[in-house]
Amino acid sequence: MGKPYVRLDKDNAAVLLVDHQTGLLSLVRDIDPDKFKNNVLALAALAKYFNLPTILTTSFEDGPNGPLVPELVDMFPNAPFIARPGQINAWDNEDFVKAVKATGKKQLIIAGVVTEVCVAFPTLSALAEDFDVFVITDASGTFNQMTRDAAWDRMSQAGAHLLTWFAAAGELHRDWRNDIDGLGALFGAHIPDYKNLITSYVKNTAK
Amino acid sequence: MGKPYVRLDKDNAAVLLVDHQTGLLSLVRDIDPDKFKNNVLALAALAKYFNLPTILTTSFEDGPNGPLVPELVDMFPNAPFIARPGQINAWDNEDFVKAVKATGKKQLIIAGVVTEVCVAFPTLSALAEDFDVFVITDASGTFNQMTRDAAWDRMSQAGAHLLTWFAAAGELHRDWRNDIDGLGALFGAHIPDYKNLITSYVKNTAK
Amino acid sequence: MGKPYVRLDKDNAAVLLVDHQTGLLSLVRDIDPDKFKNNVLALAALAKYFNLPTILTTSFEDGPNGPLVPELVDMFPNAPFIARPGQINAWDNEDFVKAVKATGKKQLIIAGVVTEVCVAFPTLSALAEDFDVFVITDASGTFNQMTRDAAWDRMSQAGAHLLTWFAAAGELHRDWRNDIDGLGALFGAHIPDYKNLITSYVKNTAK
Amino acid sequence: MGKPYVRLDKDNAAVLLVDHQTGLLSLVRDIDPDKFKNNVLALAALAKYFNLPTILTTSFEDGPNGPLVPELVDMFPNAPFIARPGQINAWDNEDFVKAVKATGKKQLIIAGVVTEVCVAFPTLSALAEDFDVFVITDASGTFNQMTRDAAWDRMSQAGAHLLTWFAAAGELHRDWRNDIDGLGALFGAHIPDYKNLITSYVKNTAK
Amino acid sequence: MGKPYVRLDKDNAAVLLVDHQTGLLSLVRDIDPDKFKNNVLALAALAKYFNLPTILTTSFEDGPNGPLVPELVDMFPNAPFIARPGQINAWDNEDFVKAVKATGKKQLIIAGVVTEVCVAFPTLSALAEDFDVFVITDASGTFNQMTRDAAWDRMSQAGAHLLTWFAAAGELHRDWRNDIDGLGALFGAHIPDYKNLITSYVKNTAK
Amino acid sequence: MGKPYVRLDKDNAAVLLVDHQTGLLSLVRDIDPDKFKNNVLALAALAKYFNLPTILTTSFEDGPNGPLVPELVDMFPNAPFIARPGQINAWDNEDFVKAVKATGKKQLIIAGVVTEVCVAFPTLSALAEDFDVFVITDASGTFNQMTRDAAWDRMSQAGAHLLTWFAAAGELHRDWRNDIDGLGALFGAHIPDYKNLITSYVKNTAK
Amino acid sequence: MGKPYVRLDKDNAAVLLVDHQTGLLSLVRDIDPDKFKNNVLALAALAKYFNLPTILTTSFEDGPNGPLVPELVDMFPNAPFIARPGQINAWDNEDFVKAVKATGKKQLIIAGVVTEVCVAFPTLSALAEDFDVFVITDASGTFNQMTRDAAWDRMSQAGAHLLTWFAAAGELHRDWRNDIDGLGALFGAHIPDYKNLITSYVKNTAK
Amino acid sequence: MGKPYVRLDKDNAAVLLVDHQTGLLSLVRDIDPDKFKNNVLALAALAKYFNLPTILTTSFEDGPNGPLVPELVDMFPNAPFIARPGQINAWDNEDFVKAVKATGKKQLIIAGVVTEVCVAFPTLSALAEDFDVFVITDASGTFNQMTRDAAWDRMSQAGAHLLTWFAAAGELHRDWRNDIDGLGALFGAHIPDYKNLITSYVKNTAK
Repeated sequence: MGKPYVRLDKDNAAVLLVDHQTGLLSLVRDIDPDKFKNNVLALAALAKYFNLPTILTTSFEDGPNGPLVPELVDMFPNAPFIARPGQINAWDNEDFVKAVKATGKKQLIIAGVVTEVCVAFPTLSALAEDFDVFVITDASGTFNQMTRDAAWDRMSQAGAHLLTWFAAAGELHRDWRNDIDGLGALFGAHIPDYKNLITSYVKNTAK
Repeated sequence: MGKPYVRLDKDNAAVLLVDHQTGLLSLVRDIDPDKFKNNVLALAALAKYFNLPTILTTSFEDGPNGPLVPELVDMFPNAPFIARPGQINAWDNEDFVKAVKATGKKQLIIAGVVTEVCVAFPTLSALAEDFDVFVITDASGTFNQMTRDAAWDRMSQAGAHLLTWFAAAGELHRDWRNDIDGLGALFGAHIPDYKNLITSYVKNTAK
Repeated sequence: MGKPYVRLDKDNAAVLLVDHQTGLLSLVRDIDPDKFKNNVLALAALAKYFNLPTILTTSFEDGPNGPLVPELVDMFPNAPFIARPGQINAWDNEDFVKAVKATGKKQLIIAGVVTEVCVAFPTLSALAEDFDVFVITDASGTFNQMTRDAAWDRMSQAGAHLLTWFAAAGELHRDWRNDIDGLGALFGAHIPDYKNLITSYVKNTAK
Repeated sequence: MGKPYVRLDKDNAAVLLVDHQTGLLSLVRDIDPDKFKNNVLALAALAKYFNLPTILTTSFEDGPNGPLVPELVDMFPNAPFIARPGQINAWDNEDFVKAVKATGKKQLIIAGVVTEVCVAFPTLSALAEDFDVFVITDASGTFNQMTRDAAWDRMSQAGAHLLTWFAAAGELHRDWRNDIDGLGALFGAHIPDYKNLITSYVKNTAK
Repeated sequence: MGKPYVRLDKDNAAVLLVDHQTGLLSLVRDIDPDKFKNNVLALAALAKYFNLPTILTTSFEDGPNGPLVPELVDMFPNAPFIARPGQINAWDNEDFVKAVKATGKKQLIIAGVVTEVCVAFPTLSALAEDFDVFVITDASGTFNQMTRDAAWDRMSQAGAHLLTWFAAAGELHRDWRNDIDGLGALFGAHIPDYKNLITSYVKNTAK
Repeated sequence: MGKPYVRLDKDNAAVLLVDHQTGLLSLVRDIDPDKFKNNVLALAALAKYFNLPTILTTSFEDGPNGPLVPELVDMFPNAPFIARPGQINAWDNEDFVKAVKATGKKQLIIAGVVTEVCVAFPTLSALAEDFDVFVITDASGTFNQMTRDAAWDRMSQAGAHLLTWFAAAGELHRDWRNDIDGLGALFGAHIPDYKNLITSYVKNTAK
Repeated sequence: MGKPYVRLDKDNAAVLLVDHQTGLLSLVRDIDPDKFKNNVLALAALAKYFNLPTILTTSFEDGPNGPLVPELVDMFPNAPFIARPGQINAWDNEDFVKAVKATGKKQLIIAGVVTEVCVAFPTLSALAEDFDVFVITDASGTFNQMTRDAAWDRMSQAGAHLLTWFAAAGELHRDWRNDIDGLGALFGAHIPDYKNLITSYVKNTAK
Repeated sequence: MGKPYVRLDKDNAAVLLVDHQTGLLSLVRDIDPDKFKNNVLALAALAKYFNLPTILTTSFEDGPNGPLVPELVDMFPNAPFIARPGQINAWDNEDFVKAVKATGKKQLIIAGVVTEVCVAFPTLSALAEDFDVFVITDASGTFNQMTRDAAWDRMSQAGAHLLTWFAAAGELHRDWRNDIDGLGALFGAHIPDYKNLITSYVKNTAK
């Protein structure tokens, strides 16, 4: 009787990175900056690893909100990049929606800053058009936990799936045998504990 | 299959400020007093900025609950102000409901003290009459987080939308181009980090 | 589309106090003991104030679980008291269910120790028999917050209403004019901040 | 209108222990290691106590993930043990699903590491095949509370029941008279406060 | 080489209760109101139990700070009560210092609201006059934990002893045999867990 | 045997505001931005109220650190303002030290961003030159609480006094009778709870 | 200029276990019960491992405080066991002090329940007689963290060394080569993460 | 009268990195793994930036503790690396002490895993030999905050200076003019907020 299980499918998913801008990031306080940067880059790495079509967008990047963080610019030189002239909800921007629909995917993986606006608004709009929306909770940030809790409730109640980049990676990969080294390297690069496990393992089994 | 996306619409929304009284405010401990005052005034500023019809109400203001905080009195000198003689649920007061209905709006933005009573009761009543209710979570306060969690669950399960004043502002404004300076000023006045971004930006681009 | 608003009605509500026993209370660690004791006694006072039929029950009170706390014994000398010989879910005890049904009430206000067992089990059972169940979250306690969160989710998803004793009092009373002094005294006795407001008010208005 | 009450039934329940491996456990940081170990062993003890068919599975145990913790190996020498060659979702492994179905049970009690992957994926898959799934929240662990919160939301929204090992024990046992000493011993071994109650009780009643 | 051990001595100690006023109490947010009220009354009960000379003082009680809480007024009808006309540091008030010195005691047990002002200032002044000062940390309250931490550091570095009402009671009583029932009653009245232990004990040993 | 009591004396104290710059403020995460802004402005208001000589300084304000926040610029148009060309420790800047010594005061009240550098370094240097240093802990901010804790320990162990702006105000004012309305206004402007007390008081005593 | 480094020396240290009684343990809420039990047993195991003379004592074990936990009784069948007839400070009991002095050790390792009374009082008394006192902070428990913080401050300021059982074990052992397997087993039994490291290591190096 | 101000001096300081090993790191739970890794690498980068002699040491790296993390191995290929055969306190290893003394520095900057053992023991030993010891608190990790608090207290009371890598960098650099770009790059690489400030600044001033 609950929400049906919609499994992330690497052949049917696109990634939307919304407003990870140098100015807006100073507003994010529900998650530690070191961890947040790591999560956003892990999500970006995951998008590249699975060759998921990825769309970048920013809000007013010529004003105080600041430019997109350079790491994302560098990782996705050929991705559609919609610098919105004013629309707060990215879904209100025709170019953005066109870019999304041009991917032909029905599963949208989304993250951004700040959660209750830049993530929640396009999430709610996409759900209303019958996309399956997967919010990457730990690559989305906002002012404080109270704000996050309300935003998660609103998106979940509207039908979005809440999960982290690690869960998304697992669901997309399905089977380690598809590529052990590649996924292991991705995990090792973004999860210090996992890197430590690998380092210990390699050393000990070499004896 | 979830709740449909009801977007806040500045032409169809009214604001209800319930029982932000000087005595009752001493009961609020799930949010820091500095932050809470800031959030309530931000919501009020938002109501004025978007010219939303606003209704004030108090409970027993001649007793220990105390008068409405003077800042709200000053900001809304002409708003309907219903000093309820005894009804705990503002929706049980005919004048209040009449004032709400007189606005002709179907979207109700509500905040108050304390969350599980003064906000939750009219929220549940308004939902039962098919209004869309948007609870401004961070301009509503109560005894502790346990109480808040239960109140949010009850309201969300009954169909209310939970969001913060900042999310409401974004959803009402829709597009920065409608008025950059006005909204920027509102954000700058109530979000120190945003004010700092603006100050740095103005200085740096002036070089 | 959400849960309908079921308002507590003092003419249609009964109170179930489940397993507030001296031994079991040592297990409660999701809420401070001073505060928890205060909340349980406030709920009991509320039951008496509104003359709600109240049913007490205990689990194995001759063993390590210990006797019912003496304050509750003293407050409800004539209430049905079902010392369950073994049933963990009070609803599995025929005498308990008979006592509940004998009240003729359809709204059940329930609290107990521990939340996920002694409260959740009869809550789920009563919901299955179409009672409206109101869980008094802050007069129910358990091992830790993780346990509480899971228990609240299970009960809410099954249709229970989550609220605190203060919200219940407000919803039952409806209008301060029904009795200002009585409700004020009840609040003053269990909410130090409210008592302080009253004391200041009385002194200042006497000048 | 909510989820119906599905009661755990010891004649219709199986236990799935997923990926409690020595390496993966270093990733668990949403719950203290002492407490987590205790909870996992309590769940295992419960499975044995109620003679529930139990299935063990691991992911890549010859790599950095490490072997199953030896305590579980020792407790279930004859249980089906599926060392998955690569499937991240245990439900994608035919042997695992066969083992589950071979039990003939419709109620699945599941716990594992990490919650949002190793627990959530088979939970969602089993729900999609109309099993009743009971997630043992406190015997499942993951990176941090943010990750846990999203995982719980996803599973609960899909229809899973969230509860702790203690709640499961109570629901399976139903009535203390079925075996007081056995359940008391199980509780005493895993709940220090309960053990203390028993010790005090035995001493004091011996006087 | 550290601070010498100064043991509280019931024949050489006086109690100073500073500014527990109904208005000022609304400022206290580093400790829960239920717990704080309990601690203050426990300290007061301890003062009476050990017959310690007790001095009450208030700051501007005719203004917004409000009157002394009535419970303390009632418990100490004959104690010196210095309503300070303006001095923020009680030690700047001659009558207060005279009352302190009139007790002839060298050990001062002090608590009040708010910690960093009403407690810290007279503590520092009394230390400068070579009194031994024992700050009852949990019967003193202030705005938040950051403020408390600074206040504790300042007082401790200046030579004050930091302890709770329970530690003070234990140090004053020295030996249970001096009066088991009296101290047990005092503990039972203010520590719910201890009351539960006593209730269980009495019941179980009566068998 | 501890630190002697050095009382703040309004005739012998100067205020040093170090590096409250729009860029650096984005690093402050051990205290909420709303509260921090309020505390800094309260300290500034206090400096003006008591006519304390006040010195402003910034680090690299033409770079990413950003300019001094405009509120402080506006409040102290005639104060010495040392824009340090590079010295991290303000005390390494001759002009700054000259300005401090030119005040002729021996008590230095200091606050800044970030605590462990911009506050701690000049604090340690000034202590080494036998100034009495009073760190305003809640008008100083840094990356996280771990960093703060270490910084406080280092400063306190070196002889600094840790206190908040409210404690400083109380210690400087000494006696309410020196000016009730002025101090009350200062408190009311920066402590919402205090403002509420005043509002209630004025209304109630007017009856 | 600080406290000199007093190193724990297994030939010069005794262990004092004070009042770990089944009733008193219900008062401990500054540390999780699972973790606390583990720490106390780890300290006891350490005492046995290093053959440190160990002294047990209880307060009123025939009353509500309850008997010593049976695990400690079983581990130290021949240790001096002083059931104090009434002294709250164990050092006030002549037999206890005699037993301590009979060990001939000058380093006292102490832990107990509750920290601010049963640990702090004998700690302060022993320091006054020039013993070196090492408080095992994580095998001592009390009502809440506020109480703990005050107790730690009082003991540290008086000259006690604060450390955990793990630090004590490391300082006593000095060199792994003294016995790798023994200490490894002790750590593995009480630190789940360490046990996991060992299990992974043994498996991987066996390949 | 407090600790004198010992300023870090890049010509008189050496860095000791103790036991940052892949296995031991799984024990660190008082700080988030992402943040901890960042802090350790920032400290290492700082050591290289200021050309501080750096000494690496490990404990039992052929056993479960695991090898030194490869990032540190790579950064310091020529540094003295003492793989201790068994000594728990690195200062008990002659080669380590020789390496320290061979640097000719009197200021020791130390960090390691776990704080209360691998950091605290050599810190206390070095203090006893009159070195100035600066503990980098945020590049040192341990089991939980209770353990950390005790370790910090022990080290601070013995005379160590507690500070973070950022404070150390500021104190070593003294003046931005010594090298703006170098230090800016170091900060930008390890403090996401600072990197964002730089990125915004560069973009905005380029207009």
